[in-house]
Amino acid sequence: MTKRHSSPGGRGLAIYPGSFDPLTRGHLDVVQRTSRIFDSVVVAVAHNPAKKHTFSVAERLGMVEDAVRHIPNAQADTYSGLLVDYIKARKARVLIRGLRVVSDMDYEFQLAAMNRRLWSAVETVFLMPDENYAYLSSSMVKEVARLGASVDEFVTPFVARQLAKKFGA
Amino acid sequence: MTKRHSSPGGRGLAIYPGSFDPLTRGHLDVVQRTSRIFDSVVVAVAHNPAKKHTFSVAERLGMVEDAVRHIPNAQADTYSGLLVDYIKARKARVLIRGLRVVSDMDYEFQLAAMNRRLWSAVETVFLMPDENYAYLSSSMVKEVARLGASVDEFVTPFVARQLAKKFGA
Amino acid sequence: MTKRHSSPGGRGLAIYPGSFDPLTRGHLDVVQRTSRIFDSVVVAVAHNPAKKHTFSVAERLGMVEDAVRHIPNAQADTYSGLLVDYIKARKARVLIRGLRVVSDMDYEFQLAAMNRRLWSAVETVFLMPDENYAYLSSSMVKEVARLGASVDEFVTPFVARQLAKKFGA
Amino acid sequence: MTKRHSSPGGRGLAIYPGSFDPLTRGHLDVVQRTSRIFDSVVVAVAHNPAKKHTFSVAERLGMVEDAVRHIPNAQADTYSGLLVDYIKARKARVLIRGLRVVSDMDYEFQLAAMNRRLWSAVETVFLMPDENYAYLSSSMVKEVARLGASVDEFVTPFVARQLAKKFGA
Amino acid sequence: MTKRHSSPGGRGLAIYPGSFDPLTRGHLDVVQRTSRIFDSVVVAVAHNPAKKHTFSVAERLGMVEDAVRHIPNAQADTYSGLLVDYIKARKARVLIRGLRVVSDMDYEFQLAAMNRRLWSAVETVFLMPDENYAYLSSSMVKEVARLGASVDEFVTPFVARQLAKKFGA
Amino acid sequence: MTKRHSSPGGRGLAIYPGSFDPLTRGHLDVVQRTSRIFDSVVVAVAHNPAKKHTFSVAERLGMVEDAVRHIPNAQADTYSGLLVDYIKARKARVLIRGLRVVSDMDYEFQLAAMNRRLWSAVETVFLMPDENYAYLSSSMVKEVARLGASVDEFVTPFVARQLAKKFGA
Repeated sequence: MTKRHSSPGGRGLAIYPGSFDPLTRGHLDVVQRTSRIFDSVVVAVAHNPAKKHTFSVAERLGMVEDAVRHIPNAQADTYSGLLVDYIKARKARVLIRGLRVVSDMDYEFQLAAMNRRLWSAVETVFLMPDENYAYLSSSMVKEVARLGASVDEFVTPFVARQLAKKFGA
Repeated sequence: MTKRHSSPGGRGLAIYPGSFDPLTRGHLDVVQRTSRIFDSVVVAVAHNPAKKHTFSVAERLGMVEDAVRHIPNAQADTYSGLLVDYIKARKARVLIRGLRVVSDMDYEFQLAAMNRRLWSAVETVFLMPDENYAYLSSSMVKEVARLGASVDEFVTPFVARQLAKKFGA
Repeated sequence: MTKRHSSPGGRGLAIYPGSFDPLTRGHLDVVQRTSRIFDSVVVAVAHNPAKKHTFSVAERLGMVEDAVRHIPNAQADTYSGLLVDYIKARKARVLIRGLRVVSDMDYEFQLAAMNRRLWSAVETVFLMPDENYAYLSSSMVKEVARLGASVDEFVTPFVARQLAKKFGA
Repeated sequence: MTKRHSSPGGRGLAIYPGSFDPLTRGHLDVVQRTSRIFDSVVVAVAHNPAKKHTFSVAERLGMVEDAVRHIPNAQADTYSGLLVDYIKARKARVLIRGLRVVSDMDYEFQLAAMNRRLWSAVETVFLMPDENYAYLSSSMVKEVARLGASVDEFVTPFVARQLAKKFGA
Repeated sequence: MTKRHSSPGGRGLAIYPGSFDPLTRGHLDVVQRTSRIFDSVVVAVAHNPAKKHTFSVAERLGMVEDAVRHIPNAQADTYSGLLVDYIKARKARVLIRGLRVVSDMDYEFQLAAMNRRLWSAVETVFLMPDENYAYLSSSMVKEVARLGASVDEFVTPFVARQLAKKFGA
Repeated sequence: MTKRHSSPGGRGLAIYPGSFDPLTRGHLDVVQRTSRIFDSVVVAVAHNPAKKHTFSVAERLGMVEDAVRHIPNAQADTYSGLLVDYIKARKARVLIRGLRVVSDMDYEFQLAAMNRRLWSAVETVFLMPDENYAYLSSSMVKEVARLGASVDEFVTPFVARQLAKKFGA
């Protein structure tokens, strides 16, 4: 489903999970930062049938794959079920999360605490995206695209085209 | 659709956008504060077909019109599409937001940053409503009205009647 | 509907309201703390037809009843309509809320202020659950259960069985 | 040092500790709320030689005694050393704290967690003062008094006189 | 002490108070935003003998004067005593504050509420500086300068030279 | 000054800076987590003559050295001057910070943004300590020790002895 990474996994592999509905430049900034401090990074698109998404899991994966193509040690993947089970299966233990704003933090701490309870070896690592993306969110990008404004500043060209197609612009 | 303002717009005109579903005394307090420090203020009711509201845009506009009737330099209007496009069309550049509580702030900062990206000339101005309205929200008012309690302390008499009609009290 | 408490109500009676969809060990920790500092505590399950719940009000009440059975001065009940009306009817004036994280607080302050406006005699008392439950929420527990992982650490055995039944595990 | 309370202490006794440098109407509001839901309340002025205060412990105690004179089940006291030791000595287990603003909360949670570690039986109870006092602090009151403005709205007449004397107004 | 403004003051005059110890590019960004939405803005350097500053009030005023020289409707001034008295004396009613981060907000709300109590006509207007300055503070700039690193990105050239002189670089 | 690490530094080396006045079990928890996801970690005790500390830099270094002795890929060091200069000199680029509570975050984001401006290659990585240490701080530990209570739960035995010596217990 995605390009294969040669790394044996384990210590140096970081998993960056999310719904990426769609991937923004803020997400991509986090991928790049991760790729510079870990051996490799997998951007793991969550496949959760219980949640409503604007883009299908295949569309979301496609947008991530397009965006990380130029980052040698990054790849895209999808997962379903419990995140810690996926991390174990990948033989990883590092889970990456971007922290943009203070109100993210309570939720992120809940998630990190829960994942730690489910598997004590998992370690959540929080990175701070560039200030220019501090206030960027997928839902705000979709709202702007839906109203017909340009989102080139906020997403990759490929994602911009997908948004235009989706919202019939 | 609304009473016309004689001001030429521009520098002294402030736009106060929102869904106002319905307008509360907290919103009205922000309108009054704005009317005292800017030449004129337009309370702009968002018409967003993608969002579910309790009241129709016409009902929400009617409630705002009733409430601002006694403020000479305030008027009601509706807008659809991108907020910054509406602000440009009104030849305004000041966007008013009320800040009630800390958790508002992250969202408001996201919104302000996004609007600034979409049009760098727009300036978001945050005002603090009276402490008595610090914890007031449209959704809490509706919940109280739905359960049959008096909301006279939280909304204008006209809005109170509309809520009573809506919730069959 | 619930075991009867002998206390005459009033000063020493504390009401702990919530949707408890389902009750977690964090909720139970708050019940125990309340039972140690007030004469008696009623865990009041909200019956709100306007909200969607995973468990019916009868199921939620059953889970609370099972959990508080071993706390002599605690009982379960349900209420509908305005919370302050229920508190008045129980001749109580103390309303208990657990505070887990900072982002809870704005909402809780809104709720406390609104309840105080509706009945000035009501006093909201905030308790802090054990740190081990600081990041626990009903929705996160349901998400974990839905994905088939064990939730024994987060809920009582009875609730765990109900979750398993509900999610067909 | 303070008027004696006839209550045997224990379950119904709440301790409200602080530096009260000086007592504000916000503090007094918390004392009144506590006095309505617990059998009795002791306002415990901290005597901490390691901290710099504007008023001596005797002056602070005097201001509290004057303010609580009209609340039958409230009294003033001082303590030094570990707060939990004082609470134990008073045969109490309830510790009262007022929560005004979100940024209080992190510090208050630290304090509550630490006190719980030092003595697991202690229970910190958070109350929310009247919205009119939500933004009031002793240091802001002193700053205003130092600059010669009236503080009658923020403190009792006795405290206002003490502030005037201290700042040579 | 400062260049005289010809505006009669009143409605269109905004006061931007602070210690400006020293002025940063974040402060300057707020001045520019204010100058675009109000008729004129006075940057009012607080002279408070009770507080310790790195720069004297004359030095701080000088740095502000240098920075606002190119903004036609901005000027620098100093004030001592109660801020609302100064605002009244200037026949203004608008008080400007920059909001950078969430933890600012609690303090700013306290201050705004206090000022509103002292003079109900004063209106605090919060502006959001450019994201690039969202995390900038005078104290952090001084710390960096004290350690000998360049602060050109954070302050004006004149302020940078003053910092270099002060810290003997 | 510290045991030498054999790692060549660079990619896999993480720097964990702080004043550690004194090191708590919360700090040690962060060191352990870091040691599990990076090749090696240096706990860097800040030597800042402009700040007042309870313990000298030598004492603080000694306490860190004692605590990390059993972690093979961890070592202690001191630094003075600009943190990013130290990180460069160590040929590292990862800076570790523990995030305990929401109010930490604003300050930590300021610091991370400033460090990124000073050297764009530095990457701040935030880790979340065990919930049991979520509310622990050096200053609270010192306050407890100063009042003569046991701090064994919060610090290592060596630090506990140092605190006892310092506060004459």
